[in-house]
Amino acid sequence: MDKLTTRVQASNSLLCVGLDPIGDDAQVESRLAEVIEQTAEYAAAFKPNLAFFLSRLGGVELLQRTVRRIPSEVLVILDGKFGDIANTADHYARFAYDVIGADAVTVNPYMGDDSIVPFAREGKMVFVLAKTSNKPAHSLQDVALTQGGDLADHAARVAQELNDQYHNIGLVVGATNSDTMARMRSITPQQWFLVPGIGAQGGDLEATLRAGLRSDGQGLLINTSRAIWQALDAEAAAKELNEQINQLRPIGV
Amino acid sequence: MDKLTTRVQASNSLLCVGLDPIGDDAQVESRLAEVIEQTAEYAAAFKPNLAFFLSRLGGVELLQRTVRRIPSEVLVILDGKFGDIANTADHYARFAYDVIGADAVTVNPYMGDDSIVPFAREGKMVFVLAKTSNKPAHSLQDVALTQGGDLADHAARVAQELNDQYHNIGLVVGATNSDTMARMRSITPQQWFLVPGIGAQGGDLEATLRAGLRSDGQGLLINTSRAIWQALDAEAAAKELNEQINQLRPIGV
Repeated sequence: MDKLTTRVQASNSLLCVGLDPIGDDAQVESRLAEVIEQTAEYAAAFKPNLAFFLSRLGGVELLQRTVRRIPSEVLVILDGKFGDIANTADHYARFAYDVIGADAVTVNPYMGDDSIVPFAREGKMVFVLAKTSNKPAHSLQDVALTQGGDLADHAARVAQELNDQYHNIGLVVGATNSDTMARMRSITPQQWFLVPGIGAQGGDLEATLRAGLRSDGQGLLINTSRAIWQALDAEAAAKELNEQINQLRPIGV
Repeated sequence: MDKLTTRVQASNSLLCVGLDPIGDDAQVESRLAEVIEQTAEYAAAFKPNLAFFLSRLGGVELLQRTVRRIPSEVLVILDGKFGDIANTADHYARFAYDVIGADAVTVNPYMGDDSIVPFAREGKMVFVLAKTSNKPAHSLQDVALTQGGDLADHAARVAQELNDQYHNIGLVVGATNSDTMARMRSITPQQWFLVPGIGAQGGDLEATLRAGLRSDGQGLLINTSRAIWQALDAEAAAKELNEQINQLRPIGV
């Protein structure tokens, strides 16, 4: 959490550059190197997506080499949406932190805090899925609970209670609905949110920032993956999105 | 699903042998080979747990070699509890089915059917987490819904609706509570359940079978991991558990 705050201030950025490598095995490693080199200056974090590496032969080693290319001051969030318990979660944590060298992970809360706590190592950070950016036919996150609110609200409260104890738990909150973003922020006023869904998935940047930023102008990591991966000039794309974000937020409050 | 039914009948077994390899890298591969060789005769399925492989250097290649050792007529369930959407889920499906060679996977329903359907390839099988065998302090699965029932019930209904369409969707239902098992069976009378939690986690075999078996004496895959991995004689352990199960179920109805 300290690393994230330090980096956000040093880079003057809330940008998270998603690394979802598509394309031929032969070209993908050089494209990853290029995107990291060109965008690191503007990035608070990089978020490699585990699936896009595992689906390739030698994918774990490619992921290791990719993480090693990322400057040490930039947060590395391994997007694995890990969701298993206790002893098994310990093994995923070893994979993410010790084998790959990530600073943070994404975690699925369906199996309860047994599946979250093993990732909450000191010096590391955990983003718990609350409200994701997709709109599936059968949503679990939208089901209404007798205790009030929906399942995403409940997940946010679980994450907040765990954060009170461990101080390194954030949430994943999609950008596709700013009312939901505002509700999540009211449930958990101080936690960091990792925010997918800007751009390709149709989220509105201004509405997202207005609904989700803390009063200090921080608290959101705005993820973009395809828009940078596919850009002819990745540096310009990252710089421009970072400037757009900064124009819409109070800085240094 | 056909492969599973054929194997259950041919082996006269509902046993799923979990492969959660612990121990030194130097010994683990020979122990995996030994367990597979000694227990395959009594196994309807093997279930390698992804985390226990990823936490080792060269773990993906070890998993590939392990799956190749499993006789082709025995179902291989890759227990990855995958939980991501659409395009990303496609990459996990490629990993599980094409890179590793699994016949089936476990999937987390938190992100809705976008995260289940990409795994429902023809000839493959998907086990959706409904009620897991752990009892976390913050349970999501137990929260009560305004529509009636709890979240696990809802997940079971989602899985059943998807099964009506795809015909290859089962559930994960832990053995730790036979009332829950009976409720899951009443929601979805015909689907296959993958059942963790017998043995080390305290589930009662007889109560589980009574509550969960279909009237044809099938419909449950009883998983055991540690009891076989740690047995001095893995073959005897698998044979004995299989006989215990078969004594408690009507066969060939």
